[in-house]
Amino acid sequence: WSCAQFVARPVGVCSMMKLPIQASAEGLDAAFVGVPLDTGTSNRPGARFGPRQIRAESVMVRSYNGSTRAAPFDSLRVADIGDVNVNLYNLPDSCRLIRESYQKIVASGCVPLTLGGDHTITYPILQAVAEKHGPLGLVHVDAHTDTGDRALGEKIYHGTPFRRCVEEGLLDCSRVVQIGIRGSSYDPNPYQYCQEQGFRVVPAEECWSKSLVPLMGEVRKQMGDKPVYISFDIDGLDPAYAPGTGTPEIAGLTPAQALEIIRGCKGLNIVGCDLVEVAPMYDVSGNTALLAANLLFEMLCVLPGVKTM
Amino acid sequence: WSCAQFVARPVGVCSMMKLPIQASAEGLDAAFVGVPLDTGTSNRPGARFGPRQIRAESVMVRSYNGSTRAAPFDSLRVADIGDVNVNLYNLPDSCRLIRESYQKIVASGCVPLTLGGDHTITYPILQAVAEKHGPLGLVHVDAHTDTGDRALGEKIYHGTPFRRCVEEGLLDCSRVVQIGIRGSSYDPNPYQYCQEQGFRVVPAEECWSKSLVPLMGEVRKQMGDKPVYISFDIDGLDPAYAPGTGTPEIAGLTPAQALEIIRGCKGLNIVGCDLVEVAPMYDVSGNTALLAANLLFEMLCVLPGVKTM
Amino acid sequence: WSCAQFVARPVGVCSMMKLPIQASAEGLDAAFVGVPLDTGTSNRPGARFGPRQIRAESVMVRSYNGSTRAAPFDSLRVADIGDVNVNLYNLPDSCRLIRESYQKIVASGCVPLTLGGDHTITYPILQAVAEKHGPLGLVHVDAHTDTGDRALGEKIYHGTPFRRCVEEGLLDCSRVVQIGIRGSSYDPNPYQYCQEQGFRVVPAEECWSKSLVPLMGEVRKQMGDKPVYISFDIDGLDPAYAPGTGTPEIAGLTPAQALEIIRGCKGLNIVGCDLVEVAPMYDVSGNTALLAANLLFEMLCVLPGVKTM
Amino acid sequence: WSCAQFVARPVGVCSMMKLPIQASAEGLDAAFVGVPLDTGTSNRPGARFGPRQIRAESVMVRSYNGSTRAAPFDSLRVADIGDVNVNLYNLPDSCRLIRESYQKIVASGCVPLTLGGDHTITYPILQAVAEKHGPLGLVHVDAHTDTGDRALGEKIYHGTPFRRCVEEGLLDCSRVVQIGIRGSSYDPNPYQYCQEQGFRVVPAEECWSKSLVPLMGEVRKQMGDKPVYISFDIDGLDPAYAPGTGTPEIAGLTPAQALEIIRGCKGLNIVGCDLVEVAPMYDVSGNTALLAANLLFEMLCVLPGVKTM
Amino acid sequence: WSCAQFVARPVGVCSMMKLPIQASAEGLDAAFVGVPLDTGTSNRPGARFGPRQIRAESVMVRSYNGSTRAAPFDSLRVADIGDVNVNLYNLPDSCRLIRESYQKIVASGCVPLTLGGDHTITYPILQAVAEKHGPLGLVHVDAHTDTGDRALGEKIYHGTPFRRCVEEGLLDCSRVVQIGIRGSSYDPNPYQYCQEQGFRVVPAEECWSKSLVPLMGEVRKQMGDKPVYISFDIDGLDPAYAPGTGTPEIAGLTPAQALEIIRGCKGLNIVGCDLVEVAPMYDVSGNTALLAANLLFEMLCVLPGVKTM
Amino acid sequence: WSCAQFVARPVGVCSMMKLPIQASAEGLDAAFVGVPLDTGTSNRPGARFGPRQIRAESVMVRSYNGSTRAAPFDSLRVADIGDVNVNLYNLPDSCRLIRESYQKIVASGCVPLTLGGDHTITYPILQAVAEKHGPLGLVHVDAHTDTGDRALGEKIYHGTPFRRCVEEGLLDCSRVVQIGIRGSSYDPNPYQYCQEQGFRVVPAEECWSKSLVPLMGEVRKQMGDKPVYISFDIDGLDPAYAPGTGTPEIAGLTPAQALEIIRGCKGLNIVGCDLVEVAPMYDVSGNTALLAANLLFEMLCVLPGVKTM
Repeated sequence: WSCAQFVARPVGVCSMMKLPIQASAEGLDAAFVGVPLDTGTSNRPGARFGPRQIRAESVMVRSYNGSTRAAPFDSLRVADIGDVNVNLYNLPDSCRLIRESYQKIVASGCVPLTLGGDHTITYPILQAVAEKHGPLGLVHVDAHTDTGDRALGEKIYHGTPFRRCVEEGLLDCSRVVQIGIRGSSYDPNPYQYCQEQGFRVVPAEECWSKSLVPLMGEVRKQMGDKPVYISFDIDGLDPAYAPGTGTPEIAGLTPAQALEIIRGCKGLNIVGCDLVEVAPMYDVSGNTALLAANLLFEMLCVLPGVKTM
Repeated sequence: WSCAQFVARPVGVCSMMKLPIQASAEGLDAAFVGVPLDTGTSNRPGARFGPRQIRAESVMVRSYNGSTRAAPFDSLRVADIGDVNVNLYNLPDSCRLIRESYQKIVASGCVPLTLGGDHTITYPILQAVAEKHGPLGLVHVDAHTDTGDRALGEKIYHGTPFRRCVEEGLLDCSRVVQIGIRGSSYDPNPYQYCQEQGFRVVPAEECWSKSLVPLMGEVRKQMGDKPVYISFDIDGLDPAYAPGTGTPEIAGLTPAQALEIIRGCKGLNIVGCDLVEVAPMYDVSGNTALLAANLLFEMLCVLPGVKTM
Repeated sequence: WSCAQFVARPVGVCSMMKLPIQASAEGLDAAFVGVPLDTGTSNRPGARFGPRQIRAESVMVRSYNGSTRAAPFDSLRVADIGDVNVNLYNLPDSCRLIRESYQKIVASGCVPLTLGGDHTITYPILQAVAEKHGPLGLVHVDAHTDTGDRALGEKIYHGTPFRRCVEEGLLDCSRVVQIGIRGSSYDPNPYQYCQEQGFRVVPAEECWSKSLVPLMGEVRKQMGDKPVYISFDIDGLDPAYAPGTGTPEIAGLTPAQALEIIRGCKGLNIVGCDLVEVAPMYDVSGNTALLAANLLFEMLCVLPGVKTM
Repeated sequence: WSCAQFVARPVGVCSMMKLPIQASAEGLDAAFVGVPLDTGTSNRPGARFGPRQIRAESVMVRSYNGSTRAAPFDSLRVADIGDVNVNLYNLPDSCRLIRESYQKIVASGCVPLTLGGDHTITYPILQAVAEKHGPLGLVHVDAHTDTGDRALGEKIYHGTPFRRCVEEGLLDCSRVVQIGIRGSSYDPNPYQYCQEQGFRVVPAEECWSKSLVPLMGEVRKQMGDKPVYISFDIDGLDPAYAPGTGTPEIAGLTPAQALEIIRGCKGLNIVGCDLVEVAPMYDVSGNTALLAANLLFEMLCVLPGVKTM
Repeated sequence: WSCAQFVARPVGVCSMMKLPIQASAEGLDAAFVGVPLDTGTSNRPGARFGPRQIRAESVMVRSYNGSTRAAPFDSLRVADIGDVNVNLYNLPDSCRLIRESYQKIVASGCVPLTLGGDHTITYPILQAVAEKHGPLGLVHVDAHTDTGDRALGEKIYHGTPFRRCVEEGLLDCSRVVQIGIRGSSYDPNPYQYCQEQGFRVVPAEECWSKSLVPLMGEVRKQMGDKPVYISFDIDGLDPAYAPGTGTPEIAGLTPAQALEIIRGCKGLNIVGCDLVEVAPMYDVSGNTALLAANLLFEMLCVLPGVKTM
Repeated sequence: WSCAQFVARPVGVCSMMKLPIQASAEGLDAAFVGVPLDTGTSNRPGARFGPRQIRAESVMVRSYNGSTRAAPFDSLRVADIGDVNVNLYNLPDSCRLIRESYQKIVASGCVPLTLGGDHTITYPILQAVAEKHGPLGLVHVDAHTDTGDRALGEKIYHGTPFRRCVEEGLLDCSRVVQIGIRGSSYDPNPYQYCQEQGFRVVPAEECWSKSLVPLMGEVRKQMGDKPVYISFDIDGLDPAYAPGTGTPEIAGLTPAQALEIIRGCKGLNIVGCDLVEVAPMYDVSGNTALLAANLLFEMLCVLPGVKTM
C-alpha cells in the first residue's frame, strides 16, 4: 500500500486512496466503485466527474483512522474496482447497467462503497443490494428527501430514488432515517410522504449547533442488527464545506456532524454505502472531493469486521 | 408559476424565482427589485452584478417554506419589477434615481424586497420608505455599522448610509439593532457613534456558537408594532458562506443564524427589506448568490399578511 | 431598445441584447430562442446554462454592426422569445418538445436564432425547419462532423444529429459544407461518411493562418438561392477563444475566421441559425458566452432583409 | 536590481519589476506609476486592482530585451513611484487628483509609464502631459475609439476621454492613430467623429493575420518628431490573450501585433505611455496582468535615450 | 499610517497593512516578515505566494482592534521588513538562509511576525529564536502535529519541523500545546510521539462546537511567564474558511476559535509568531489570505507591551 | 482499448488515453510515463499535477489521427506505465530516481513519452536515453533556452537542463534546434551560449503568423537519421492556448504550429519525447492539459514504425 512517506503524493495513476485496481469484486470484503452518471441532475450537472476527482483528492487520505483507531486495511481486503459503465443518454438504461453491475459485486459478498454520480444511482444500487439482503434499513444524509414522484414527466431522476425504492419494497420503512433535510419546497408540508411511510425525518434545523452523537444512539436502536445501507448526499452538508454539488441548499450540516453520523453507525450491519452528488467543477479548490474521499474512508472504517488498534 | 417539476430549472429568462416580470409595482403587495450599483464600494467592486446572479441562482428556490409553512404566493401578489436604472459614474445622482424609483414603488402600497447592489443604496431607499411610513425601526445585519462620516472626502459611499439616515431623521433610533458587527477599526471604540444614537449593537462575538432565537425575542419587543425595515448585508455572514462580497470580515454569522434572525422578524410590521453586497465574481460556485436568493425568499415569507399552511 | 448610453449595462433582467421578451414568435421576422439542453453531451456537461450566460453577456452587444453597416433592428422585427422547455431526463422526449416548439416558430414565418444547448438540438430544429422549407443547405462550423451513428447504444446524442438529418432527408447533401473539422478519431478516415453523402468538408488544417473570404465565395455558389441553415458549434473555434465548451479540440478557427464565415453568408437565403455548445462554467471570465452573443448578432445581421446604412 | 538568479521570484514586496520604490519622480528619467481607478467602467469593474496585479506578475520580466537588444536600465534612471491616490466615489475629483499628480511627475522631466486603471484616467493624464509638451500625437491601441460624448448623462467615464481631449486641444488631431477598433456600435458609422477630427482609424479587420510592421512605418511618418503619447487599452488585444478586462470585444489583435506596434514606436519622441483596463479577477491565471507587465516593459524599451547593446 | 478614509484601499504598493517598508528590523519592536518558501510541501504547492497575497488582502485590516481595544500601533514600533530570500531548489540551504536572517531580526530585540511559506520554515525560525530566548513554549495550531521523522528519505520538509526542534532542544516540551489536530494517519496512534515528549495534544474533536476560552485559561497556566512562540498553520481551520492551503483536513476549527486562541495568549511572553501554509491559488476569492492577514494582526495585538484603549 | 462509443468518457480510472496500466516497460514499443516533479520551478509551482491532469483530459483523445492517418495502436505496443517516484524535497536525488527509472525503460527498447513535470526532468531523462543511444539530436520547443548556468546558487533547476546536458556530452550540438524562444532576459544577448554550442535558435518572432512546414523541412535535414529526442515545453505556446504553466511568456507559438513541428518530425529516428511544464491549477478549464494530451498523442503518431492507413 502506497504511503506518502515513501511515494510522493502526486505520484501515480489515481485510484481511490492509491489502492490496487482490480477488474472485479472477487475476493474482496469491500470495494470502492465509481458510478459517473449525472444526467439525473435537475440543476447544475457535473457529478459525472465526481469519481475521478474524489480519487484524485484521496491521495491525502492515509491508512489509519487516528480518531477512532480503526484499521480497515489490517482488517479487510479492499480494492478499487473502477467504474460502472453508464449510458449517458438514457437514464433507465443506466439504471439497468448499474443494477447488473452491483448484482455481481454483492453476489461475491463484497460490500460496495460507491463514488457517485448523482443520487439517481442509489435506486438501482438498492435494487441489487436488497435483492441479496432483503429490505434495508437506510441512514440517509441529504438536504432533500429525494422522494418525489416525477419531474418533467419522468419517474427516474435524482429527486425520486427513495420513492421508487419504497414502491419496490427495497426499504424497511421503519428503519429509515433522513438527516439534514431542509430548503424550500413545492408543497407546504414537504415531509408528508416520508412520514406516511414511517421514515424518521431529522430536519437540518434540529441539528444546528448540536452534536449528533445522541441522535445516532437513537438511530442505532432504530436500525437494530438487520442490514443497513448508508446513502450520503454531499449536499447534506452546508455549501460552505461542499460547494461542488448540483443542488445546494443553505444552512446545512457540518463535517463534524457528518463524522458523528458515520462514526455513529459503527456496530450496525452495514451492507453498502454511497457518497453522491460531488460535482467538482463548482469547487476549484478540490476540497468538496477531498471531503467526500474522507467520508468514504470513514464509511469503510465502520464496516462490520473492521478492528481498532 | 413555473416549477421544476414541470419546467426544467435551466429554462427561461431569469427573473427572481421565475416570477412574472412587470414594469411597475402597481397592484402588487410585494416586489423584488434590483439596484445594480457598486460604485460606493471601498474595496472589491462587483455588486453591480448582484441582482443578475441572485436572479440566476434563484431557480433553486421553490414556492413554499417547508420549515415555517409560510405560503407567500398563496397570500400576496408578488412580481419581479426589474432593476432601477443607476448612474454608474455619479453616486449622488444614482441616489436620486433610486429614491425617485422607490417613491413610486412604495406609493402604491407595495413592499420592496431589494436585490443589491452595495450598501450605499439603502440610504436613498430609506429616504423613500420613511417618507411614506415615518421614522423606521431597523433590523440591520452586517459586519460593519456603516455609520462612518466620510471617506476620501465624500459623504456618500457604502460606509456611511446609516449616519446619513440618522441625520435626516429617517430612523427611529431606539428601534435600531445591528447584528454581526466585527472587524478591525479606525477607532479604538468603533461603536461609540451607534451607542450615542441609541442603537443596539450586537457584535459577532456575542453570537458565536449560539442560537439567535432569544435575541430575536428581544428584538421583537424593541421593534414593537411600528414600521420596520430589514437591511441585510451578506457580509454579516462569515466569508466561508458568502465569499462573493466586497469587504469580507472573518468570524461572522452562519446561515442558520441568518434564518433565525429573519424568521424571528415574523409578526413585525415590515415595510421593506434589502439584501446587499453580493459581488458574484469572487464566488465562482454561485453559492453566495444562492444564499442571497434564499434569504430574500425568507424575508418575503415574514412579510405581514403571509399565511402559513 | 435599451442602450448603455441611457441605461447602465448591469441594469435589467437579462434577455438577449435586452430585447423585449415575448411569449411567441407571432409577428416577428426573427427571434432569439434558447434551448437549455445538455444531456446529449459526451464529455463535460453544462451547455444547459448556455442560453442564460449568452443572454447575460449580450449586454455588451450594441444595435449596429459598425463593420458591415448592417442595421438589423431598423430592418426586422426581432425579440427574445425565451426558452423551449426540455425534458432533462429523456433525450428523445426533449427532441419532440423542441421539434414541436420550432414548428410553431417557423409556422409564422419567423427565422429562429437559437442559443444552445448541446448539438443534439439541431436535429429536432432541422426537422421543423425542413418541414417548412424542404431539404436545406447547411453551413456547419464545428470541430466535429457530428455524423456518428450511435454511442453507448443510442442514436440520439450530440455526436449524431447530422446523420439523423441525412437519414430523414432534411439536408440537401450537395449543399452542405462543414468547416473547422479536426481532432483524433475512431476511424482512420473520419470523413468517409460525409464524403459519401456529398458534403464538402473543410478541415481546420486548410484554414490555419488564412482568410476564409475566398472559401465563402465558393460556399455562396454551392448554396445558391435555396434555403440555408447555419449551425455554429462554438468548438469550431480554438479553445483559447472558447474554453467554455464540452468537447474542445485543439488548433481550431479564430474569431476573425468565424466573422468571415458568417459575414460571407450575406446574400444567402437563410432560414435559421444556431449557436451551440457554450458550457459557461468552464470559462469563468464569461468570454465564451460573450463570443457566442456576438456571433448570434452577426448571424442576425446577415438574415435576408437586413439593410445596411 | 533584483534578479531571479540571485533572489527567488516569489521574494519581496511587489514593486514593478522589483524596481526601487520612491515617493516622487525627482531625479528619474522614467517612472512606473499606478492609477487604481475603475469607477469609469461601463460593464465589468475591477481595473482598480490592475496596478497591484501587474506589479505582482512583473516578477517574470527581466532587465534586457533580448529581441530588440534594448537595455533600458543601463540607459535611464527608472523607479516605481507607487500609486496616485484616487477618489473612488467621485470621478471628476479623481480626475483632478490624477491631473495634479501628473503635473508634478512631468514637471521634473520624467516620462510616466502608467499602470491603469480604466481608460478614464488618460484624460487627466493628457491634461498634465499636454500642458507641458503642447498638443500631442497619439498612438492609441484599443477595441473602442473612446470618443463618446456622454453616457448616463455624464461626460466623464471610460468611453469619452479622447473626445474630452479633443475639446481641450490636448491632441494634435492629424497625429492620432487608433488601432484595433472593432465591435458593435450605437451608430451605423462609428468612426464618423474620429474621421471628422482627422484621426487615422485602423479597424481590427484591417489587421487580421497581418504583420503590423508596415503600418508602423506609416505611423512613424505621421507622428514625425513632435511629442507622442502611447495609450494602450489591453482590450485592443483579443480576449483570448487578455480575458481580464472590463469591456472585451471579440476578434482583436495578437500579442505579436502589440509588440510590433510598440517596437514600431522606437525613434518617436515619446513623452508618456499608459496601459489600461486590466481587471485581474476575470483572469484567474494572472496572465492578462503578465501581458500588461511585458507591454509596459516594451514601452520603456522604446523611450528616447534607451540604448541597444 | 495610511487609512482607507484618506487613501483608497486599492492604492499603493502592497506592504503588510500598508506599513512602511524597511530593510532591517533595527529600531523595531515587532516586524512583519515574509518567507515565501513552499518546496517542503507534500501535496499542493503554492505557499510561496502566501506572503504576497496576505500583504495584498491586508488592505482590509485597520489599525485598532475594536473587539479587544488593543492599539498596537500606538504601543509598538512596527514595520514590514520584506521577505527573506530563499533557495527554492535546496531545502537545507533555505533553512540556513532563514535561520541567519532571523538571527539578525531577533538580535535587535524585535519580535518577528512571519508570513509563510510552508511549515518547514518554523524549524529554522525556532533555531534563531531559541538561540536568543532559550527553550520555548509553543502554542501550535494545526491539523497535523508535524512531528514526523522523515518522508521520501528526507528529514526536512513540512511534516517534520517540530521533531527537529525537539531533537535540538529548542522546545520546552512541557510547555507545548497542539490544537486542532485531526485527519487520517500512517499509524493507529498518531499522537504517541507527541505524548512521549510531554506535549499537550488537543484534537479537533475536542473543540467541535465549543468555545476555546476555557482551554486557553489552561494554556496560559501551562505556558507561565517564560518565552512562548505561536505557530499557526492555516490548515488548523476548516477548509471552508481556509481553502487556500496545501494539505487541508476536514472538520477543523472555526475563525471564532482561532480568535479565541490568539486573544487567549494575551499576557504571555510572546517572542515570535508565524502564520503558515497559505497557498492562495486554491482560493480565488482571496479570503484565505484575508483570514491570515487578520490573524497576524490579532497576534500583533497580543504581543507584550500592546496597550488597550 | 476503450472508446467513447462503447464506454462513456467519464468512466474509468484515468490512465493516459485509457490505455492499460502496467508496472514496467517490458514488452512495449512505447510507453507513456509521468514524472510529477515541480520543485525545479522558478515562479509558479504546480507541474507536479501535470501527469494527473493530462491523463484526466486525455479521455478526449481517440485512437486514430484523422489528419495524418497515423494508426499508432495498430502499429505499436503501447501502455501507460504510471509515474516515476520523485523526491519532492531533494532535486538532485529526484534526478537520480528519474535517471534510474529511465535506464530501465530504455533498456528494454521502449520509447518513453513523458508527461511532466517541470523541465528539470529532461536532464536525467537525457542521461538515460543518451547512455543507450549516444549523443542525441534535439527538437526543443520552448519559450526559454533552458541553458542557464545556475540560479540561487544551484546548478539543477528548470532553467539549466540543456547546459548540464551539453556539459555531459549528451547532445549532438549541431543537431539541436530550439523553437519558440522569446521573452525578456538577464543578458542583452540571450542566445550567445546556444550559438556558441552550435544550436540553431528559432525565436518566436521568426515564427509569427507563419507556417512552420518549411522550417521543419530544414530541421529534418539537420537531424539526419541519427537518434533524436523531442522536448516540448508547453510554454513554447502562447499563454492564451496554455495558461496552465509556471513561467509563461507572451507572443508564443500556436497549436497549429505545434502540430506542424511534431508532424514535421515524421521520419526522424525518434528515441524519446517529453511534454513538460503543465501546471493545471492555473487553467481551471482543463484545456492546457487537454492540449498536452493531444501533443503527446501526436508525438506517438510520429514514432518510427507507426503506419498510416
